[in-house]
Amino acid sequence: MKHFQALSQEFAVYFSKTHFPDQPETLYGAASYMIEDGGKRIRPVLCLLGSELFGPIHSDTWKAAVALELFHNFTLIHDDIMDKAPLRRGRPTVHAKYNESTALLAGDVMLLHSYDWLNETSPDYAPSLIRLLNKTGKEVCEGQQLDMDFENENAISLEQYMHMIELKTAVFLAASLRMGAQIARATPADQQHIYDFGKNLGLAFQVQDDYLDSFGNPATFGKQTGGDILSNKKTFLLVHALEKSAPDKKQAILKLLLSSPSDKVQRMIALFHECQIDQAAQAAKEQYMKLAYSHLQQIQVPEENKLALQELAEYLIVREI
Amino acid sequence: MKHFQALSQEFAVYFSKTHFPDQPETLYGAASYMIEDGGKRIRPVLCLLGSELFGPIHSDTWKAAVALELFHNFTLIHDDIMDKAPLRRGRPTVHAKYNESTALLAGDVMLLHSYDWLNETSPDYAPSLIRLLNKTGKEVCEGQQLDMDFENENAISLEQYMHMIELKTAVFLAASLRMGAQIARATPADQQHIYDFGKNLGLAFQVQDDYLDSFGNPATFGKQTGGDILSNKKTFLLVHALEKSAPDKKQAILKLLLSSPSDKVQRMIALFHECQIDQAAQAAKEQYMKLAYSHLQQIQVPEENKLALQELAEYLIVREI
Repeated sequence: MKHFQALSQEFAVYFSKTHFPDQPETLYGAASYMIEDGGKRIRPVLCLLGSELFGPIHSDTWKAAVALELFHNFTLIHDDIMDKAPLRRGRPTVHAKYNESTALLAGDVMLLHSYDWLNETSPDYAPSLIRLLNKTGKEVCEGQQLDMDFENENAISLEQYMHMIELKTAVFLAASLRMGAQIARATPADQQHIYDFGKNLGLAFQVQDDYLDSFGNPATFGKQTGGDILSNKKTFLLVHALEKSAPDKKQAILKLLLSSPSDKVQRMIALFHECQIDQAAQAAKEQYMKLAYSHLQQIQVPEENKLALQELAEYLIVREI
Repeated sequence: MKHFQALSQEFAVYFSKTHFPDQPETLYGAASYMIEDGGKRIRPVLCLLGSELFGPIHSDTWKAAVALELFHNFTLIHDDIMDKAPLRRGRPTVHAKYNESTALLAGDVMLLHSYDWLNETSPDYAPSLIRLLNKTGKEVCEGQQLDMDFENENAISLEQYMHMIELKTAVFLAASLRMGAQIARATPADQQHIYDFGKNLGLAFQVQDDYLDSFGNPATFGKQTGGDILSNKKTFLLVHALEKSAPDKKQAILKLLLSSPSDKVQRMIALFHECQIDQAAQAAKEQYMKLAYSHLQQIQVPEENKLALQELAEYLIVREI
């Protein structure tokens, strides 16, 4: 069983081919710029691991992995346009380096290339892979729309927030694993379990990400803490605090949201502490992880086959939040 | 043999189902708004006619026709964002009515829905239909990028201009016909002929559209003439004039391009007349139509089967330009 990092490196080699023609240089220069960016390649590796769980990795699994990575990059390019993000992983975003129109088109061609790869897999499962990508892609769009809609709404319930996260982030991780399992001809029950493992892992990951923005150690978190607080972003912490806290705490949080004191981050974190939101996030993350592991456990393969996915889950989810 | 208008009406009924879920309302409201807009439905009808040429219309042809119409609308939504167009067919564009981010996402989900329809056709030809849509979609994106690139370039050759038009407009008409022929299991040679018929028809149509902007009768053209001249748009007329005219005429055109006198439209049209650009456009259109008909002629089916496509070509291409 290959572990995550080894597969990630192997995928990087496989993926480092020339994906696009030369002309028009503006369009394909922008598309190439996006994918040479690297990133963690989590989705393709999930696809490979989802396949390896059930047997040797088929050459079609590598094609599906490329499709998933291209599709993911399509969503990132378009999301960055919508979010008006100037940087991604320390480099100018595609629309910042080129322009919005070229970035929009680069995302579109990236998506079309993604379907090319899936369409070249065996006709035994290509239609079901394409169906899954279609379904998941629509859900990702729905999640992004909900995320934008929530910016303009004051009262978002925790249930609404987690539904948005499920669509925007978790289902794509789940579908990546499931595609690998489909190609490995896993039973429908096992396909569903690996999907649910990925979905709950994704939810746990997002709760953790929200937690780390307030409570993470900047040295290990990799970015400055408090960014979500400064931008009044709806996060698990904020939504939970507004839904479950005592009225006086809730009023204090709402008041702080509407103002911009120089110590806003520290004050919000203090309020989160007082409302025990850190513990609530910890509990929610553990609940999702427990659910994820229960699905992994139910998959009908030898336990040692599951080690790589357990390793991956531990790599993604920090124990001590 | 059903003619164009009858098939167009039949398609409108088939297409008038509910395409999208209710939620998120912003996203699917925007997508629904776009397709309830109507339009001429040329591409789906080309697909149906391309099939009917070779025999009875298969139920899968209707699915492919829906996929093509959805795909076309995806390109329109994104093009309108890039062109910052406020209106389409007399109504606010999607991004003007909603906002750019929602329009961008609505285009994305429209594209994903398009693949859903193709993916549900028979596995005998679904992979080749998807391959053709992928290829054509990329070409349409390339054409749109070239069109934007050309805005910032002074010296575009006629060859470059026609290549851009081929990618941006003509290949999608060609592919629509070919999809119908593929489902009807036409021979590869006949598929290529119907594709080339559509491509040349598309080129003729674009030359005519450029011609009509300067020389059309506003009463029958359906929009005010001179719009291309006022926006300094690269058209067949302008590109041809700058490439082929005598140096003094070319200088006069370039000078007029850089200024904005109140009679700019009349003066440019006069210059086009002096350079006999109207005759050049007429000749080019006729050449493309001749090529189109020669491909139609070579298709190995009874001549009477070709009447509907001839009718359509005559409907699209005005005789007396």
